[in-house]
Amino acid sequence: MWSDNDLTGTLGIKYPIIQAGMAGGPTTPELVAAVSNAGGLGTLGAGYMAPEAIRRAVRSIRSLTSKPFGVNLFIPENPHEDQMKIEQMTEELNRYRDDLHIQVPESVQFTGQPFEDQLNVLIEEKVPVFSFTFGNPSHHVMSMLKEHNVKVIGTATTVREAKQLEKNDIDIVVGQGSEAGGHRGTFIGSFEDALVGSMALIPQLVDAIDIPVVASGGIMDGRGIVASMALGASGVQMGTAFLACSESGTHPKHKEALHSSTDESTVLTRAFSGKPARGIKNEFIVEMEAGNAEFPDYPIQNALTGDVRKAAKAQNKSEYMSLWAGQASRLSRNLPATELLERLVDESGQVLENLN
Amino acid sequence: MWSDNDLTGTLGIKYPIIQAGMAGGPTTPELVAAVSNAGGLGTLGAGYMAPEAIRRAVRSIRSLTSKPFGVNLFIPENPHEDQMKIEQMTEELNRYRDDLHIQVPESVQFTGQPFEDQLNVLIEEKVPVFSFTFGNPSHHVMSMLKEHNVKVIGTATTVREAKQLEKNDIDIVVGQGSEAGGHRGTFIGSFEDALVGSMALIPQLVDAIDIPVVASGGIMDGRGIVASMALGASGVQMGTAFLACSESGTHPKHKEALHSSTDESTVLTRAFSGKPARGIKNEFIVEMEAGNAEFPDYPIQNALTGDVRKAAKAQNKSEYMSLWAGQASRLSRNLPATELLERLVDESGQVLENLN
Repeated sequence: MWSDNDLTGTLGIKYPIIQAGMAGGPTTPELVAAVSNAGGLGTLGAGYMAPEAIRRAVRSIRSLTSKPFGVNLFIPENPHEDQMKIEQMTEELNRYRDDLHIQVPESVQFTGQPFEDQLNVLIEEKVPVFSFTFGNPSHHVMSMLKEHNVKVIGTATTVREAKQLEKNDIDIVVGQGSEAGGHRGTFIGSFEDALVGSMALIPQLVDAIDIPVVASGGIMDGRGIVASMALGASGVQMGTAFLACSESGTHPKHKEALHSSTDESTVLTRAFSGKPARGIKNEFIVEMEAGNAEFPDYPIQNALTGDVRKAAKAQNKSEYMSLWAGQASRLSRNLPATELLERLVDESGQVLENLN
Repeated sequence: MWSDNDLTGTLGIKYPIIQAGMAGGPTTPELVAAVSNAGGLGTLGAGYMAPEAIRRAVRSIRSLTSKPFGVNLFIPENPHEDQMKIEQMTEELNRYRDDLHIQVPESVQFTGQPFEDQLNVLIEEKVPVFSFTFGNPSHHVMSMLKEHNVKVIGTATTVREAKQLEKNDIDIVVGQGSEAGGHRGTFIGSFEDALVGSMALIPQLVDAIDIPVVASGGIMDGRGIVASMALGASGVQMGTAFLACSESGTHPKHKEALHSSTDESTVLTRAFSGKPARGIKNEFIVEMEAGNAEFPDYPIQNALTGDVRKAAKAQNKSEYMSLWAGQASRLSRNLPATELLERLVDESGQVLENLN
């Protein structure tokens, strides 16, 4: 199962295991480098990072590994700036600010980081792999990436999306099953219609496109890896499994929440960012979903909740943090990434042996 | 992979493949017997059948096979007879009656078939395997089944439910992933919290209980079977895959809908029965979900829509039928069940070989 395939060959890695590029802090240079050094593909989740911060992180990764690694960015969106919604939400969030003893911010920057500038850093720093979510890059961007021999990984939640990525000359498609933690990558149609479980999604993706399919969503150990390969995937992308690693920048309270979670703990919500994402249900989600204020579009809502989430982290208040997690988060293990990789490989071998 | 395991041993079957006991017509005695004769476990979906109809069907199955087979029943519920909801829904349904040129029924029988009488037929006819959904049988029922050496299969959508089934001395647990077609088996907590994808659900069930776990939800071919076994399941239960078989009583328009479906076609709805179930989105679902009338409890809503569904079938109007389907329905194949079983076994062998 570990012999070279279309995925490991394309990426120049030993094991077909990609550590997901989770934005917001968990993917430290130490985590990314450890995964790549152990034979997988580490990925910096740089969607929310300023261009120069990406440059520093990439250089830091480079100082720790000579192996291939990736950087993940978000395809930018054009949100509708609904002033009424923004005002109501600001009001709604004030009760958390009161509770956290923080001031209402004087101004909030609604737009995300400048995508073209982020991308230029990747080109300048010769990042070997670029992965993205929330859409499909423009023809111009794809030409630039191809010209610089960057391998490109897109994210699809349906067959329609995967076909559109393939048409755009993407090298590899990550199929995001409904089990996955964090943001839904859906960019065509409604996210509800695109909540397809991995068991159903992966074989349909494999049948529909000719480029390598990487399974993601609910994969936590050797069982999930072998299952994904059986479904026809060329490899796996694991997010939640790496959240709990010692090198990850995940907040300790978030790690605790993963370990004490059950299969019923997670929920899909727009409360944190305006875009549907899966996380462990907490006070913030329950109250915001029940509240009267409508969520402004992503990334406006993300900007509006930024100070609350930051203060919640600083004050160890997990009830107001975004505790992103997939549906098998209870299987997460607090291990150094190198050891986790080794175990994943050993377990997969064991699972395969038991099947024979 | 096909050597005797805890599932095949307990049930006395050759291959760990169970044909789901889908109620409402698809599981003809011919289908059930063909699956059992081919080495799987055929199951009569008898939830909506009168006791004497079950007896006739069981005798018919017996005349076609000497192999073990199962009968599936519903654990009865105590619905709230909300007269206001019932009147509004009756009114709401009249537009379909107009369109189908049928009369408003003079009276509707709200209660389901008598469970104890159904069960007594199973005992009297010495049915070897009893499977159920929507709960957990009483201690009295379990004692009776055990006394008559009936093997008992329960359905769980969460770890909590599986543990409760194990505690009740159930022999085998079917883990129903969120991909599955038809009714959600959830009987503890909210069905939304219990929508766990197979990739995440199965390993957690296997870790939590000591009795055999059977994977279900989105499994359509050898890829899904090997994936399920890799996740730790002792076997699989397949519903949608058998819906399209030549022997199944599935309406031809329903089979057509399966074949032309995509990964985005299905939706969860209470519109047909009052209980959440996954089917292909059609006019009836869209209109009823958008309508003003609230759905009465299951099985009251099932009784109220009965004449509409029946007339829709008679008149080939698939827009008003319940087109139950899992999230991989596009992978269904219109084959005789014997041939499907053979292909599933061959494919699984091939998948396993490719993994090595």
